[in-house]
Amino acid sequence: MSDRGLTQDRARRVAAPGKPAKAPPPARARRTLLDLGVLNGHLGYFIRRLQLWVFQDFIRTLAPIDIGPAQYSVLAVIAANPGLSQADLADRLGIERARLVRLLDRLDQRGLTRRLNSRTDRRSHALRLTPAGQRTLRRAKMLASAHEVRLAERLGAERRRLLLDAMKNFER
Amino acid sequence: MSDRGLTQDRARRVAAPGKPAKAPPPARARRTLLDLGVLNGHLGYFIRRLQLWVFQDFIRTLAPIDIGPAQYSVLAVIAANPGLSQADLADRLGIERARLVRLLDRLDQRGLTRRLNSRTDRRSHALRLTPAGQRTLRRAKMLASAHEVRLAERLGAERRRLLLDAMKNFER
Repeated sequence: MSDRGLTQDRARRVAAPGKPAKAPPPARARRTLLDLGVLNGHLGYFIRRLQLWVFQDFIRTLAPIDIGPAQYSVLAVIAANPGLSQADLADRLGIERARLVRLLDRLDQRGLTRRLNSRTDRRSHALRLTPAGQRTLRRAKMLASAHEVRLAERLGAERRRLLLDAMKNFER
Repeated sequence: MSDRGLTQDRARRVAAPGKPAKAPPPARARRTLLDLGVLNGHLGYFIRRLQLWVFQDFIRTLAPIDIGPAQYSVLAVIAANPGLSQADLADRLGIERARLVRLLDRLDQRGLTRRLNSRTDRRSHALRLTPAGQRTLRRAKMLASAHEVRLAERLGAERRRLLLDAMKNFER
């Protein structure tokens, strides 16, 4: 094969993925050709890319038990603060009240959470996990650990720890 | 005015602007009472919180010129790679093809971008900014810088740089 042939072949692979025979290069290879321009200076762009990767991997990993990131967060915070109110939970997670109500309706229907009347405030509910909810959260934690290991492999364990520290600080 | 009066006044202003007398404590204060439980070990949770903050601030900052994060990314990458194809742009930004088409339709209608026939591939378009698109991108960059300064203030400049480096590495 001549140099010209090689170059044409490469050009074809680069330009038109999904064509027969010679498999296209992974998206990664093509991506490096394009300059991000001014996006290179914006943290938000890279945060969004990382966040999408993390959520996709999380969703895929917890699909067998049908628990998404928002549901996982809700179960985790209820487990750590049994009896908390919907208002405080929404506030803690930065979820809109209406969206949390829908999330809790769904979890209630699945028998994972319960809304009891609050002892201290009759207008609000006290949230708890049911025994089934506790079991589901245990399974979810195990699966989520596998996801977190994958993320650490991808980022490097040291970089993961560093990001976690930096971002926890932002929360406060 | 007594100290008590001052404190109450401040509490009212901070907690619930426009509400009379006993206001609930500010969200931040209540938030610290709740344990995040197992979420403390998940980078994804903190990435999501930071990403939401960044996008909200970005959207607010660029509202005067009606440019959102996705539109900004599209304009920036076209400016840095004039003549690129839709497929490569979608791939570079990790945007679904259908969504990018809608984004470009909108930018075309506003007279900011143009789709020309590609010289090398008749099936694809070569994307360019119009002069108006270049002007809009210049204004967008200025506003986006102000947003980035705010983010650096919130995170600390050193931490921002550190996050940017760590995340760029993830991209590759």
